[in-house]
Amino acid sequence: MHVVANAAMSADGKLSSRRREQVVISGPEDFARVDALRASCDAVLVGVGTVLADDPHLTVEDPKLRDERRARGDPTHPARVVVDTRARTPPGSRILDDEASTYVLVGEAAPEDHRAALREAGAHLLETGDDRVDLTSGFAALEAEGIDRLMVEGGGEILFSVFEAGLVDELSVFLGSLVIGGREAPTLADGTGFVEEFPDLALESVERIDDGVLCRYAVE
Amino acid sequence: MHVVANAAMSADGKLSSRRREQVVISGPEDFARVDALRASCDAVLVGVGTVLADDPHLTVEDPKLRDERRARGDPTHPARVVVDTRARTPPGSRILDDEASTYVLVGEAAPEDHRAALREAGAHLLETGDDRVDLTSGFAALEAEGIDRLMVEGGGEILFSVFEAGLVDELSVFLGSLVIGGREAPTLADGTGFVEEFPDLALESVERIDDGVLCRYAVE
Repeated sequence: MHVVANAAMSADGKLSSRRREQVVISGPEDFARVDALRASCDAVLVGVGTVLADDPHLTVEDPKLRDERRARGDPTHPARVVVDTRARTPPGSRILDDEASTYVLVGEAAPEDHRAALREAGAHLLETGDDRVDLTSGFAALEAEGIDRLMVEGGGEILFSVFEAGLVDELSVFLGSLVIGGREAPTLADGTGFVEEFPDLALESVERIDDGVLCRYAVE
Repeated sequence: MHVVANAAMSADGKLSSRRREQVVISGPEDFARVDALRASCDAVLVGVGTVLADDPHLTVEDPKLRDERRARGDPTHPARVVVDTRARTPPGSRILDDEASTYVLVGEAAPEDHRAALREAGAHLLETGDDRVDLTSGFAALEAEGIDRLMVEGGGEILFSVFEAGLVDELSVFLGSLVIGGREAPTLADGTGFVEEFPDLALESVERIDDGVLCRYAVE
C-alpha cells in the first residue's frame, strides 16, 4: 500500500487554533490540489478527533474528477476511513452518509452498542488492536479490501501515529502565510513525539501556491 | 526599531523535541545565513527559557562578519537581550560573558538578589512591566539604548509574545526535512495562541537551502 500524508499548517506549524475551530490556511489552488489528490486515492483516512471537531465529508468536489474516477471503473469517491479505537464516530456524521463507503478501524474494547450503531449507519468495521487501533494491521486489513493508495488527512494525532508506525511514503505540507500560535493548538504531528531517530524526509519539490508554499517530501 | 524574527523548525513546526533537547534542523548554509543576519543587527533577543534550555552564546561566528562590523564602527558582536521577568538568567550563562554587552529585561517583581547577581555579572538591567515583561516598552527602552535593528531568535514563547504585541516586521522560517512530533514539543509560536485576527504574513521569498526550505515573510 502506498500512503500519502497531506496537511495544511500555518507558518508556525498549527492545523487550527487552540479552540480547534477550523482556520482558513490555504486557498482555492490548494483546495483543488487536495481534491485531485483525494481523487487519485482508493481511500482517505482521518482520526476520530477530526470527525468530532470538523465533521468532514471527505468526498471529491470536482465533477470532472468524479467522472474520471467512474470512467476508469472506480467508485465516484474514494472510500473513507476513520481510526476510532472506541467507536466514538457519531452515527449521524457526514463521513457516514451514502455518498461513499466508509471503514471504521476500532479496537477490541470498542463498546458493542457503539459498533452496532455504526454498522446500522452503514460503516464497515475492522477490528484491530486493543486499547489503541494497531495501524499496521489496520492498514493491512484495508489493503485486503483493495485499498492500494491511501491518503491520510489528519489530524495531528493520527499523523504522528502513522509516522510512528513507519507507514508514510509521502508527505505534502502546505505552509500558509499566517501565525496561529498556541502551545495547545494542534500541530501537524502531535502524539508523544519523537525524541531520537526522527523520521527523515527528502524534499522533492517546493512551489508557491495560493499565498503560501507547498512542500512535497518522500519519507526515507 | 525594525524587528526580524528567525527560527528553524521541523516539517511539522517544532523547534525541538518534547525533551527540549536541541535537534539539528538546518545545516551549514542556514547557519551561515543566521550568522549573517545576527551580524546585520544591533541586538539579538531570546527568552529566558531558551537561555535555561540551550545556554546560547548568540555571538557572530564568522571572523569576516566580525571584521565588517568593526570596520563600520560597530562592536564586534551585536548586543544580547534576554526577556526574563523574574531575573532567572544564571549569572554564569554564556550570554553573560564578556564578548558582547547583554541587556536583561526584567519585571518589577524580579527579586533584588537575582538582579544584583546579574548586575555583578555585567548585565544591563531594564525594568519594564510587572508580572510579565512589557515588550512594547521594553523594545522602546532598547531603542533608547541605540538598538535600531533587533533579531528575535526564540524560543516559541517569546516568538508568540512579540507577534501578540505586534512588534515583528519580518519573519524568516527554515523548514527542515524531518518530523519531530509531540503535542508538548515547542513550536515556532507557543503562548496562548490566537483564536481570531491571526497575524497575516506576506510571503516575500522561498528558496531551497541545505536540505530544507527557507521562507521569508513581511508581517502585515
